[in-house]
Amino acid sequence: MDDSAASPRLQQGGVSKVEAPKPRARDLGLPFPGRCGPCNAITDVPGVEVGYATLVNGEAVRTGVTMVLPRGLAGRATSPVWAGFHALNGNGEMTGTHWIREAGYFLGPIAITNTHGVGMVHHAVTRWMVERSQREPGPYAWFMPVIAETCDAYLNDMNGFHVQEEHVREAIEGARGGAVAEGNVGGGTGMICYEFKGGTGTASRVLSVGGGSYTVGALVQANFGLRPWLRVLGVPVGEHLTENRIWSAEQGSVIALVATDAPLLPNQLERLARRAALGLGRTGTPGGDGSGDLCLAFSTANATHGEAGGSSVEAMRFIPHHLLDGMFEATAQAVEEAVINALVAAETMQGRDGRQVDAIDHGALREVMQAHARLARRDSRP
Amino acid sequence: MDDSAASPRLQQGGVSKVEAPKPRARDLGLPFPGRCGPCNAITDVPGVEVGYATLVNGEAVRTGVTMVLPRGLAGRATSPVWAGFHALNGNGEMTGTHWIREAGYFLGPIAITNTHGVGMVHHAVTRWMVERSQREPGPYAWFMPVIAETCDAYLNDMNGFHVQEEHVREAIEGARGGAVAEGNVGGGTGMICYEFKGGTGTASRVLSVGGGSYTVGALVQANFGLRPWLRVLGVPVGEHLTENRIWSAEQGSVIALVATDAPLLPNQLERLARRAALGLGRTGTPGGDGSGDLCLAFSTANATHGEAGGSSVEAMRFIPHHLLDGMFEATAQAVEEAVINALVAAETMQGRDGRQVDAIDHGALREVMQAHARLARRDSRP
Amino acid sequence: MDDSAASPRLQQGGVSKVEAPKPRARDLGLPFPGRCGPCNAITDVPGVEVGYATLVNGEAVRTGVTMVLPRGLAGRATSPVWAGFHALNGNGEMTGTHWIREAGYFLGPIAITNTHGVGMVHHAVTRWMVERSQREPGPYAWFMPVIAETCDAYLNDMNGFHVQEEHVREAIEGARGGAVAEGNVGGGTGMICYEFKGGTGTASRVLSVGGGSYTVGALVQANFGLRPWLRVLGVPVGEHLTENRIWSAEQGSVIALVATDAPLLPNQLERLARRAALGLGRTGTPGGDGSGDLCLAFSTANATHGEAGGSSVEAMRFIPHHLLDGMFEATAQAVEEAVINALVAAETMQGRDGRQVDAIDHGALREVMQAHARLARRDSRP
Amino acid sequence: MDDSAASPRLQQGGVSKVEAPKPRARDLGLPFPGRCGPCNAITDVPGVEVGYATLVNGEAVRTGVTMVLPRGLAGRATSPVWAGFHALNGNGEMTGTHWIREAGYFLGPIAITNTHGVGMVHHAVTRWMVERSQREPGPYAWFMPVIAETCDAYLNDMNGFHVQEEHVREAIEGARGGAVAEGNVGGGTGMICYEFKGGTGTASRVLSVGGGSYTVGALVQANFGLRPWLRVLGVPVGEHLTENRIWSAEQGSVIALVATDAPLLPNQLERLARRAALGLGRTGTPGGDGSGDLCLAFSTANATHGEAGGSSVEAMRFIPHHLLDGMFEATAQAVEEAVINALVAAETMQGRDGRQVDAIDHGALREVMQAHARLARRDSRP
Repeated sequence: MDDSAASPRLQQGGVSKVEAPKPRARDLGLPFPGRCGPCNAITDVPGVEVGYATLVNGEAVRTGVTMVLPRGLAGRATSPVWAGFHALNGNGEMTGTHWIREAGYFLGPIAITNTHGVGMVHHAVTRWMVERSQREPGPYAWFMPVIAETCDAYLNDMNGFHVQEEHVREAIEGARGGAVAEGNVGGGTGMICYEFKGGTGTASRVLSVGGGSYTVGALVQANFGLRPWLRVLGVPVGEHLTENRIWSAEQGSVIALVATDAPLLPNQLERLARRAALGLGRTGTPGGDGSGDLCLAFSTANATHGEAGGSSVEAMRFIPHHLLDGMFEATAQAVEEAVINALVAAETMQGRDGRQVDAIDHGALREVMQAHARLARRDSRP
Repeated sequence: MDDSAASPRLQQGGVSKVEAPKPRARDLGLPFPGRCGPCNAITDVPGVEVGYATLVNGEAVRTGVTMVLPRGLAGRATSPVWAGFHALNGNGEMTGTHWIREAGYFLGPIAITNTHGVGMVHHAVTRWMVERSQREPGPYAWFMPVIAETCDAYLNDMNGFHVQEEHVREAIEGARGGAVAEGNVGGGTGMICYEFKGGTGTASRVLSVGGGSYTVGALVQANFGLRPWLRVLGVPVGEHLTENRIWSAEQGSVIALVATDAPLLPNQLERLARRAALGLGRTGTPGGDGSGDLCLAFSTANATHGEAGGSSVEAMRFIPHHLLDGMFEATAQAVEEAVINALVAAETMQGRDGRQVDAIDHGALREVMQAHARLARRDSRP
Repeated sequence: MDDSAASPRLQQGGVSKVEAPKPRARDLGLPFPGRCGPCNAITDVPGVEVGYATLVNGEAVRTGVTMVLPRGLAGRATSPVWAGFHALNGNGEMTGTHWIREAGYFLGPIAITNTHGVGMVHHAVTRWMVERSQREPGPYAWFMPVIAETCDAYLNDMNGFHVQEEHVREAIEGARGGAVAEGNVGGGTGMICYEFKGGTGTASRVLSVGGGSYTVGALVQANFGLRPWLRVLGVPVGEHLTENRIWSAEQGSVIALVATDAPLLPNQLERLARRAALGLGRTGTPGGDGSGDLCLAFSTANATHGEAGGSSVEAMRFIPHHLLDGMFEATAQAVEEAVINALVAAETMQGRDGRQVDAIDHGALREVMQAHARLARRDSRP
Repeated sequence: MDDSAASPRLQQGGVSKVEAPKPRARDLGLPFPGRCGPCNAITDVPGVEVGYATLVNGEAVRTGVTMVLPRGLAGRATSPVWAGFHALNGNGEMTGTHWIREAGYFLGPIAITNTHGVGMVHHAVTRWMVERSQREPGPYAWFMPVIAETCDAYLNDMNGFHVQEEHVREAIEGARGGAVAEGNVGGGTGMICYEFKGGTGTASRVLSVGGGSYTVGALVQANFGLRPWLRVLGVPVGEHLTENRIWSAEQGSVIALVATDAPLLPNQLERLARRAALGLGRTGTPGGDGSGDLCLAFSTANATHGEAGGSSVEAMRFIPHHLLDGMFEATAQAVEEAVINALVAAETMQGRDGRQVDAIDHGALREVMQAHARLARRDSRP
């Protein structure tokens, strides 16, 4: 892993400021397995870019938008991105999935926002894609973008519908590669995870499969879980850190995005999406009824295949099924670490009606891990 | 059937005017099987209401919104409506289906609009539900409405994003029971079906099952099909009416809604949704690649079950599986007739860039049917 | 079409004798659309072979086994066959589909038998594959064959479990290409379709897609439907031929196999399987509750991909989604014609308890078609 | 928990002998969360019975059959058992699931055996159900039993097809309630789990939901996982106990059955099945490609609903979705503990070709747990 991976300089699109480096989960000595990429982020997958708009205004606006651009801002909006979807628990929204199930691909950016922002973000992304496509060749006449959500109504005035078209454009146009901001940023701004302050988290794995080297990256908008369920690397942290609880029943949701440059068939990407659910499960959740736990896996490979203009047989590269175990484990690992990264990065936040959600205390977390013999030296980078 | 069923007085919400009665498919003598309800419309299912906003402005605005309110405008927005979903071909959008697949219900109205209107309509319906729910008891904190679409880009300036929040409210608040306007109305305004002018269509069936009498109603936004595929009651009409074609490849989509007052489990409603797809198939389509052929079936029964406030075991009434064949056939029949009703009701329309789409000629249709011994007396009501 | 296509010399494996040529649906003048292959059979797809064991003994044994070998008897049992599955109505059995859903392929032959024969046929096919695989390279340690069924309990002593391992081997080893026997043969021996004698039927289509020429073949074991539902090319034949009915409720099932040499991704083959369901629907069924209407589509292309021995990235050829409409229509057409071919080929049969099921009367069928202007000259081959 | 729960007297049907009590996972001090039922077994769900046939002959026969009878041996074979299915990884077989997906129920016992025994067991169970149903009222004409498998080819001469009809009958007729044998018994006889000797395991949870008290029981046939993946209560045991490994790639499978007396809709039972997959995930697996990880959840409630003879509307009792979190967590917990119980109960076995698979060493396991502060007093019963 690149030396800067655990705490890279943060980039943050949109309205939010550049923050000073802050520790990530590995910096705390959490011994995550596997080898991560240079930024330990979804952007380690070549071409993938992330942009944010973060809205923190007054006492009650705590929300935003996160954009993941599979082919980057410079990429064509009308190039298929092969993908697979899985709902661990379908109490949430992710648009665009009927076509992903049918054809195995989507077009354009993936947006994540708050539950009641789905409509405006869908509107804005569609309009952006219409404009963008007019500068591209090809016959596209309609767009059905992928917009997902988790609910920030506890801290944010979600019924105020504060996410506007301009924020969507900021997030798209601010997208870039490299290190990715985590915690209270973008769509993750007002989110809550295992009753600690949650938000955006990311991680990656690099692995060799069938003679090639590939990256698997995850980005989560983590807004799920009851405290007693929380496990960190298998340690029942939630049974020890019992202060400042919020919920009596699951209220949240989580969106887990998995990116890879490995060439995979759509049904293989659905297999990865199902392993993303296992990664969520590793943090303790049984998939609470109130939680929309939606997983989308996509590959940046096979970029030019299946485009609307194509008129003959094409060839989709793929890794044979029986070589995929490493990809499956990498997916689960990256999603698990991304959730913990979101927890570690998030900072205590006050929101509407004087409510406060506390960040997990890094020292207390380390103590519990230490007590269970699951703490490495300060920096656990392999 | 009530004497006024074939050509009832039309109701039409929103900006559109009340039109004079016009013939429906049965008025032309098409011998549809089965016994229909008093309005031969989805509103024959007690409580179901339909509202429209129709936008026809200048040369290029040919669009709108259709609202189907399973429990009517007076009903609670937060009462679960048990439902099942099926995609015959997933090249389209219908939001809210992850929860339908998981839990078997949705809340609030169902909206159908144009493809690029999904975002704004989602935004507006969500806002309406937030407002409405504040007047209702219960703990709902978020809404994930059901918004569907078909593409009217041939006639309508779809990239102008003309559907606004006010139109959504018009359509919801204009919802009512009784006869339902068909053709160039609501979300169906600019639609095209088998390369004839298409749009909104509806039909119903009344049947006895297990000692009870139930209604199955269908409403379609019909925007699909290539001309040569068109079959009317099995007659290959599209092979005979070959003038004024538009497409070289499938460009459309269809949303098929099925309502019933029969008490059914969610998985039984999914079974009905799959039969809605067979009803579409009866009109000739093989489910073209470019077509989002999405089917949603819901029941107005079991209205008070599963609400968020419930705290104990409930009892969901249902008809045993082995008694459902009549419901299956009624579903297929109602959807088939709704599509043909949309074709018969739609009127020739000019739209953007001087384009025109012709309505099917009633006389010519009757001639083809006559030639195939499939024409009843003028009025085929059973 | 080859001149011999409508009534080729019949091949028939297993215990049944070679019969004299008999008319097929096209021979009767039924104007099926589309261009069929030389045998108008699933075996028109290069490499596909069909074998039968037909058991007609005493008063009560009326059953058998049908084998479809995607890569022929000479092909490797351990070569993946890419496939997709769809259940129009899941009241039936087809084993092996979990892996088809997960990975997109199966190995070995497809068997169709009676409902209570599934176990013995599964046992026998597994054993045959074990033996066969020992002569092939590769690491296969286990087999999960595809065994499907429909119920012949009306005519056959199904609870006598008459299908034995030897019959399975006869059917496999008798598999060959060329013309395919239809009607009361193999697994279709005792079957009933729309309350006429049913059984095995097949058909094919040849079409050009994206510069290539491909074949789509269908084979059905047709054992479904209530008489009033029956439509032949859209004509409501079942409303006219009302004699000798058997059922008061749907009792049957249908297995629809679709083969093609077109290179398709697994999810594209699932799309074909969904169109096979539309083909069934064209014959009138609404998918009765008691009917297991299961559809499996497979491609013989990409034969060497994904094998267990592979150790690097492979390339799967596929036709882009937007070129598939012709394949979809061909699939629906071939399945529809295969069902009607089964009806036309089947002969009146007596079975257990003195029961008799009558074949459809060719003359009466022609009369109804004629009356609806849907009869071509005697030989309708295009 | 009843005092006898951790190490009850073992019952063992079929050919195997009654063994002396042996410790279960809780006896070793593993601090499983939750409150278990009196036997900590699937049979804690009233009415559920388990039977085995265990075949250990010569050097190479190491296999068997496990039967789970949802309504007990005395129950009607033709009473629907409401159920839901989920495939974490579909590389396995479980028959009968098409109807479970369609209608939400199955009939009769659930059998688990080795991969190549599926056919014979299907045959035998079908025949048993035919015989049994002839003593029951009702019109059942066909049966499609639920037969599942995992592969014991490493220790067992699986290609010898040793499971015969008589063993199936032994297992069914030996079914009883009470304590359940674990480890090398029944279908689990020759199985391998995380490269230790695996086999059959069971566990249960008792919980209050919506004013009622319910039991959730799990039974697994555990034959999956690579050693490094193994986690016990989150502790990375597989990284510490690294001796005597067998596999270089996932070779196994696991069947997870979940039973409950809680009244649940079919789609709610599918939700439980998805949580069973999370329970498997808690033991470390990412769902290896070669593993058929199939989960079936069923409820013994609503026993008389939906039967073929019913002729009117019925009422299915169910717990509202929003009260299910406890059920979800209990499901994951019971499945997790059942897997570890299988590992703890299994004993070192020699099999074909002189191969040996070692049981996990209880002392070494305790040491690793102790080192991670995850060991309770010897008896961890709550």
